Amino acid sequence: NRHHACNVRSRSISVEALKPSDTFPRRHNSATSDELINMAQTCGFSNLNSLIDATIPLSIRRKEMSFNTFDEGLTEAEMMLHMKSLESKNKCFKSYIGMGYYDTHVPPVILRNIMENPAWYTQYTPYQAEISQGRLESLMNYQTMVADLTALPMSNASLLDEGTAAAEAMWMCSNIHKGKRKTFVIANNCHPQTIDICMTRATGFGIKVVAVDVKDVDYGSGDVCGVLVQYPGTEGEIMDYGEFVKEAHSHAVKVVMATDLLALTMLKPPGEFGVDIVVGSTQRFGVPMGYGGPHAAFLATSQEYKRMMPGRIIGISVDSCGKSALRMALQTREQHIRRDKATSNICTAQALLANMAAMYAVYHGPEGLQTIAQRVHGLAGVFALGLKKLGTEVQDLPFFDTVKIKTANAQAIADVARKSEINLRVVDGNIITVAFDETTTLEDVDNLFKVFSNGKHVSFTAASLAPEVQIALPSGLIRKSPYLTHPIFNMYHTEHEMLRYIHRLQSKDLSLCHSMIPLGSCTMKLNATTEMMPVTWPKFANIHPFAPIEQAQGYQEMFKNLGNMLCEISGFDSFSLQPNAGAAGEYAGLMVIRAYHLARGDHHRNVCIIPVSAHGTNPASAAMCGMKIVSIGTDAKGNINIEELRKAAETHKDNLSTLMVTYPSTHGVYEEGIDEICKIIHDNGGQVYMDGANMNAQVGLTSPGWIGADVCHLNLHKTFCIPHGGGGPGMGPIGVKKHLAPFLPSHPVVPTGGIPAPDKTQPVGTISAAPWGSALILPISYSYIAMMGSKGLTEASKTAILKANYMAKRLETHYPVLFRGANGTVAHEFIIDLRGFKNSTGIEAEDVAKRLIDYGFHGPTMSFPVPGTLMIEPTESESKAELDRFCDALISIRQEIAEIENGKADINNNVLKGAPHPPSLLMGDAWTKPYSREYAAFPVSWLRVSKFWPSTGRIDNVYGDRNLVCTLPQE
Amino acid sequence: NRHHACNVRSRSISVEALKPSDTFPRRHNSATSDELINMAQTCGFSNLNSLIDATIPLSIRRKEMSFNTFDEGLTEAEMMLHMKSLESKNKCFKSYIGMGYYDTHVPPVILRNIMENPAWYTQYTPYQAEISQGRLESLMNYQTMVADLTALPMSNASLLDEGTAAAEAMWMCSNIHKGKRKTFVIANNCHPQTIDICMTRATGFGIKVVAVDVKDVDYGSGDVCGVLVQYPGTEGEIMDYGEFVKEAHSHAVKVVMATDLLALTMLKPPGEFGVDIVVGSTQRFGVPMGYGGPHAAFLATSQEYKRMMPGRIIGISVDSCGKSALRMALQTREQHIRRDKATSNICTAQALLANMAAMYAVYHGPEGLQTIAQRVHGLAGVFALGLKKLGTEVQDLPFFDTVKIKTANAQAIADVARKSEINLRVVDGNIITVAFDETTTLEDVDNLFKVFSNGKHVSFTAASLAPEVQIALPSGLIRKSPYLTHPIFNMYHTEHEMLRYIHRLQSKDLSLCHSMIPLGSCTMKLNATTEMMPVTWPKFANIHPFAPIEQAQGYQEMFKNLGNMLCEISGFDSFSLQPNAGAAGEYAGLMVIRAYHLARGDHHRNVCIIPVSAHGTNPASAAMCGMKIVSIGTDAKGNINIEELRKAAETHKDNLSTLMVTYPSTHGVYEEGIDEICKIIHDNGGQVYMDGANMNAQVGLTSPGWIGADVCHLNLHKTFCIPHGGGGPGMGPIGVKKHLAPFLPSHPVVPTGGIPAPDKTQPVGTISAAPWGSALILPISYSYIAMMGSKGLTEASKTAILKANYMAKRLETHYPVLFRGANGTVAHEFIIDLRGFKNSTGIEAEDVAKRLIDYGFHGPTMSFPVPGTLMIEPTESESKAELDRFCDALISIRQEIAEIENGKADINNNVLKGAPHPPSLLMGDAWTKPYSREYAAFPVSWLRVSKFWPSTGRIDNVYGDRNLVCTLPQE
Ligand SMILES: Cc1ncc(COP(=O)(O)O)c(C=O)c1O
Ligand SMILES: Cc1ncc(COP(=O)(O)O)c(C=O)c1O
Ligand SMILES: O=C([O-])O
Repeated sequence: NRHHACNVRSRSISVEALKPSDTFPRRHNSATSDELINMAQTCGFSNLNSLIDATIPLSIRRKEMSFNTFDEGLTEAEMMLHMKSLESKNKCFKSYIGMGYYDTHVPPVILRNIMENPAWYTQYTPYQAEISQGRLESLMNYQTMVADLTALPMSNASLLDEGTAAAEAMWMCSNIHKGKRKTFVIANNCHPQTIDICMTRATGFGIKVVAVDVKDVDYGSGDVCGVLVQYPGTEGEIMDYGEFVKEAHSHAVKVVMATDLLALTMLKPPGEFGVDIVVGSTQRFGVPMGYGGPHAAFLATSQEYKRMMPGRIIGISVDSCGKSALRMALQTREQHIRRDKATSNICTAQALLANMAAMYAVYHGPEGLQTIAQRVHGLAGVFALGLKKLGTEVQDLPFFDTVKIKTANAQAIADVARKSEINLRVVDGNIITVAFDETTTLEDVDNLFKVFSNGKHVSFTAASLAPEVQIALPSGLIRKSPYLTHPIFNMYHTEHEMLRYIHRLQSKDLSLCHSMIPLGSCTMKLNATTEMMPVTWPKFANIHPFAPIEQAQGYQEMFKNLGNMLCEISGFDSFSLQPNAGAAGEYAGLMVIRAYHLARGDHHRNVCIIPVSAHGTNPASAAMCGMKIVSIGTDAKGNINIEELRKAAETHKDNLSTLMVTYPSTHGVYEEGIDEICKIIHDNGGQVYMDGANMNAQVGLTSPGWIGADVCHLNLHKTFCIPHGGGGPGMGPIGVKKHLAPFLPSHPVVPTGGIPAPDKTQPVGTISAAPWGSALILPISYSYIAMMGSKGLTEASKTAILKANYMAKRLETHYPVLFRGANGTVAHEFIIDLRGFKNSTGIEAEDVAKRLIDYGFHGPTMSFPVPGTLMIEPTESESKAELDRFCDALISIRQEIAEIENGKADINNNVLKGAPHPPSLLMGDAWTKPYSREYAAFPVSWLRVSKFWPSTGRIDNVYGDRNLVCTLPQE
Repeated sequence: NRHHACNVRSRSISVEALKPSDTFPRRHNSATSDELINMAQTCGFSNLNSLIDATIPLSIRRKEMSFNTFDEGLTEAEMMLHMKSLESKNKCFKSYIGMGYYDTHVPPVILRNIMENPAWYTQYTPYQAEISQGRLESLMNYQTMVADLTALPMSNASLLDEGTAAAEAMWMCSNIHKGKRKTFVIANNCHPQTIDICMTRATGFGIKVVAVDVKDVDYGSGDVCGVLVQYPGTEGEIMDYGEFVKEAHSHAVKVVMATDLLALTMLKPPGEFGVDIVVGSTQRFGVPMGYGGPHAAFLATSQEYKRMMPGRIIGISVDSCGKSALRMALQTREQHIRRDKATSNICTAQALLANMAAMYAVYHGPEGLQTIAQRVHGLAGVFALGLKKLGTEVQDLPFFDTVKIKTANAQAIADVARKSEINLRVVDGNIITVAFDETTTLEDVDNLFKVFSNGKHVSFTAASLAPEVQIALPSGLIRKSPYLTHPIFNMYHTEHEMLRYIHRLQSKDLSLCHSMIPLGSCTMKLNATTEMMPVTWPKFANIHPFAPIEQAQGYQEMFKNLGNMLCEISGFDSFSLQPNAGAAGEYAGLMVIRAYHLARGDHHRNVCIIPVSAHGTNPASAAMCGMKIVSIGTDAKGNINIEELRKAAETHKDNLSTLMVTYPSTHGVYEEGIDEICKIIHDNGGQVYMDGANMNAQVGLTSPGWIGADVCHLNLHKTFCIPHGGGGPGMGPIGVKKHLAPFLPSHPVVPTGGIPAPDKTQPVGTISAAPWGSALILPISYSYIAMMGSKGLTEASKTAILKANYMAKRLETHYPVLFRGANGTVAHEFIIDLRGFKNSTGIEAEDVAKRLIDYGFHGPTMSFPVPGTLMIEPTESESKAELDRFCDALISIRQEIAEIENGKADINNNVLKGAPHPPSLLMGDAWTKPYSREYAAFPVSWLRVSKFWPSTGRIDNVYGDRNLVCTLPQE
């Protein structure tokens, strides 16, 4: 053949080269080997490993990490196949279980453009309000939605779940009574998980909980601070609480009501009964059940109690141009400022889910919601009528969506139902409840008739019964007041309008889609698409948390694998996946320690030592466990003052419960003495609680268990890739050593405990409403770990540390870098000190953060743990080019500060104080600034290629707190 | 019970109220009943129906439309379930079929952020370059990728598929020879569908195709204009074409080469052989097989032939600020300007898929691509070695990814393979080929060994063989030249970098996520999420187009249902789903008419009458069928001059083939005489081809078949919701009357024909590379139709017409509205005339379109069909509020023109001539315009709430065409 050249070059091939090429670590960890060397050398080390060796104390350095499964790391395609196979092991039966979880139609436009959209889910909590106006508006919609539907004046911007929201309300009641009344009453028509969470929480607070039938509530003792009831009740009944509230108020007892927003579109709202605090979940507003979460809960109350409210609150203020603008209000209530005196320990909440629920209300509008509610109510009515015709006894109290049925053998019926892929709630041997939701159809009701007809022919259909049904609600309980009257809830009811509204908001918010978000202590790393994809697959999304475990075998297998891998990573023996955020993990972990001491008879052990540098959630969580907090200081190098610690431990020897310690420290340093510290605590009878927020500096290199900690929470939304979602969701599972494993939390509906399971169990109680917390987002962390493999994870830690050191090196000649380890290196984050500029130039940390916005960046963590500083954490996922760009921005800003120092710029009117500069200001016809427009807008050349514009000028925090408005103002 | 109020209000419920509430038409059609009345009254009618009755000629008004399936319309959730059930009927076997289609790993970051992202897929073709710089850059990357890998100087920005690209190249060869050489040679190592498409195309062009073995090519006749070869060949062989090209060139024969970009990362590129034109598909660069498409094909050549190139070409130019900026180059080649003299009829191409493929190259970079190629090549090598060990005969020519096997009974082996869910290509009784791809694993090769071992134990594994394999490529065929050296291909290899690059580009482009895109003739309506979701489900995405039909039963069922519904909608008897765009449909339809005439012995019938107002694709397509075009004019009212038509028809009576007519007319009018027009044509022996671009004004109200047309294409990317994707994909299926059905296209690999199937078949040939065109996007149109139901669809048409009339009414006192129907109404679109401003103010249509950008809008269709006008089409999906906003913008612009008229604004230097105004200009330190910055930026208040910023000033088209640069300049 004339085309066939004879001169053939051949070579043999390696098996390695034939393995799949879509490996993940190189997509996650950003650094070529040249860059690794280059950065290490910039830091004065010959290579990455020598920098790491010099950084991490040898005494705590672990030899190796290896997993029984996935040690080599799956490729992205392999991961997808694995997750598909897990998904196929889950079964989505029709759920009529109710109990706070309902199937729902996630509007596809919201699914795709929020839940599956990195421009929404990779946002950070809106601390930099000028580049967060989109989600702030949406959260304002959320607060307005809750306030309108509950008829209370104000709501927060989300809480973790309905059960913890109820517990927060309980604590508010106690606080309203200044702690003087020690009893809290819970009506037994609340969901069992709500009751258990409150009971668990009460033990820490030293509150006595009385659970009684709503008819038997008695305030005679005079010691009752509050009462919790549910409306509609867990078994479906709707009661008129008018008299009940009056009675409570006549004893100065505060009334907390757990409720259902969908029901409130038809029913007289809690506020009109005079209820003081309302809590609930917004899950059924278009957020998938997800085998338990994440979902947004809410807490609404009157302005009278605004300073006692837990959680973030969005409020209106004004910006530097005098325009109305949104930001988080009343932060002085929160743990990051008030620490153990805070209203709650909550930090990460459920922003993304709150936004989804709010958008659901925006999309449906008041009429649309009411249509859905009436339909659900109608189906329940049809069902009840059909049952009566079948001769089955049905509760005669009015109901909204849940029909209560009396029967000889409840379990037998449930078993029949199960065979038709239907889940019912068996309340007890004789009671079944059937809860309807938006997804129920007439055909579903027919199928239920079949289940309840005991094999007999059913002579009617749901459709045929409809005209006969009398929908009966007591007229006094029918809602008459309007809701969701704001134009936002009445303008975007077609998909185009909704799409554009979502994108309009999105365009105002900076996210990881734009640039690095180098927030110290927050680990804003890549949230890879492959990790995110299973989250919206139907058979992960649409499972009720209380579905029989055999229907969730895909989940259960994942929990097991994940638990084992987290044990290997952390050096612990068992994990609980229940806590829904870091702070919830802290609380859970401290409660476990408390239970351990109690179980040993050490009732007196209640002292918790906490360094002053600790995150605010630490003291706040300790306070929730009734612990006495002993603060200890740090030395000049930022390390825990070991002698002070020793003294404190010895002083409190008999009562020592716990040390809470963050490692590497919140100062960004691997303290050399950490093993000694652990020993001191143990020697004095205490337990070591390690705050795992900085786990990204440990994975594969050391571990909490190895170091000597007894408990630790892992923020899966930091180290393990769950995106921040603009302020949640998160997950804060806790790992424990063997001796603590029996005490890991359980659940009243689906018993849980440690993974792997310990030999015996003695659970501390219930921490979250769902047995495995926010199960739906666990695939993210699971996929991350499985795709990275032990080697990829270790590289990630090393790379993250290198990058922090590289940045510190580049910046150190421009800004003082606070705190370093023994060999002059920092951990995975570091602090630059801006306090020196205050006197000479008037410049504060905030000015630098706001000016960074003009450079297209989200500011680093401000004034934590040291006021007047910025804490920078690059993570392994940011490229050297991105780090350089960020350093260049900070260095350029340093020049801008120098202009003030040397008198070229005005101390009061300069480009930093004027920052950020929104387009409306920059292209205003009047320009009165002493610096130029172009300089304000384009201080560096890359901004000419593409720039993210802030949508407001600097926002005035004080004004907004003085004039609190936290619902949409009527136009 | 004291809580149980006694006063009960009850009401009965309707079955209607219990039906699912997630109905779709109200999400798609935007109008409350109040708004409908209000708009109708504004137009001078009492209600919607009276406006419709006055608008559509009674003589063509159909009575009703109803579907056998889905007539009532599925809800969104029901649609999802139906699509899931179809998906479950598709089976994804491992495909080794090759033939231009390969399984690929779509990088998840590209999948989610481009393919599943409405901000990308709802973009329009980048005619307004100032708000399209993102996709223009990406398409420039695409052209650079193709040019680099083929080693030719320039590429276009996509064509429909490899087969049609080869046919376009054939036509180029003919044109290069000015039509004087009438023979085109095709080597039989091309894919069979490529050969068939060229053959079909050749009959229209009057070209003689000779298909021969590559060894037997003979140019002795002197009549050969070009030769087409494939490299690597369809059966895998790699040959050295050096001598071959020399030989062809020595006869002045142009060489066209079909190739595979992945192979070219390792092989000497076509350009280095001296090949003149290179074509191919970029499908395997991260675009799913999708049972045939959509995928982007390319055509690369030298600058010498730039004016003969088919398709859109992106080039560099400068903007009004003197900065480099991108736009479509050399438009004077294209059908919309050159009509029947155009280089091609192509209009809608495959922009979205070109962008995906380009991003794949950006993500992998040159090393990454080569790694993939070497791995695929290595696996093929291992497989070939294993087969030899098993005693099977393997082709001894070098190969890249496809191994050719000689065997006694090919079909028997393929049948064994099928049992293991493996598809092989059976070339003939004794030949099998096995093509490897990126997704193949060592385990897959082991499974293949099992298939070929005939049940015997295999003593080796793929992994065990690897070290033994000698990868043998002729050294003269090994690529030595570099490629993809531009930084863009070398910077974004981690997911964060890729994510941000995609979002950076996205932020420059206006799409339906921002505002209405009221492009007359383009029907930019809602592309609903529910319609889009199945497109990326694995069992729709990952099926080879030549997989056995029983593996695609979900698809087949959909084709059948869709064909039936399209027949009902259009009034036809049978549909072909093969054409991949409107223009391809025109060509296919005309070829069918041609075949019909031929079959009746009417060889002389080749006259095609086309009104001057027709879209450029009409004459261009007719030219491709060798038809003689007779133009006819329109009367003062914009209607076809019926007497002129009659005269033309009668004059050409004996040779009359076809009338091409658009209905409602491109003037936005329902011509009263349309039925008479059809009759005149039929009476004179002609057939009526109706251009279905304006089908959105017909659905449910009239139909092409009812009116009297014989053939019609439907632009599924207009009326039927396939998003425009920034310039494709599209689908242009054709419907025909019974007498034409036998001639509908077939396919050489998988025979196809009309749906429903006619009694006999006599196919015209092959139109597209895949049997059912771009099958993967058919779920979009299918879901749209099924969710709307017959009533929803009819409402859509009515609402679209009402909205056009409403806008025309609001605008008519500000701008002359050209052309109206008999009762003063317009159809679903209308034309405003700007020609009057030219003399008095210097303002042209382009100035208004560019100024609209400052108002946040994409300009309407410019100068089609009437130069100096704008054609506005709102569609049913735009809310009244959005229409009003757009009208307000145009009215405000009219005031700006008035300022020039009355001398307040400078005729040369005004806010229209200066538009659009990018931020860099608006906040420049120097502002020399006679109007204010704020007025330029914020002429209306809604822009203060949210504004989409253009990223460049006005772009100079002429400069770029004079200095053509259409690959990324090295920096
Ligand atoms: C050191 C530290 N501990 C605890 C927390 C609390 O975690 P979460 O926000 O998940 O409740 C944080 C959160 O930023 C933290 O940085
Ligand atoms: C009237 C008309 N005919 C034909 C076409 C060609 O369709 P396509 O772009 O899908 O090839 C168009 C496209 O805009 C059109 O408007
Ligand atoms: O380009 C056009 O779609 O006409």
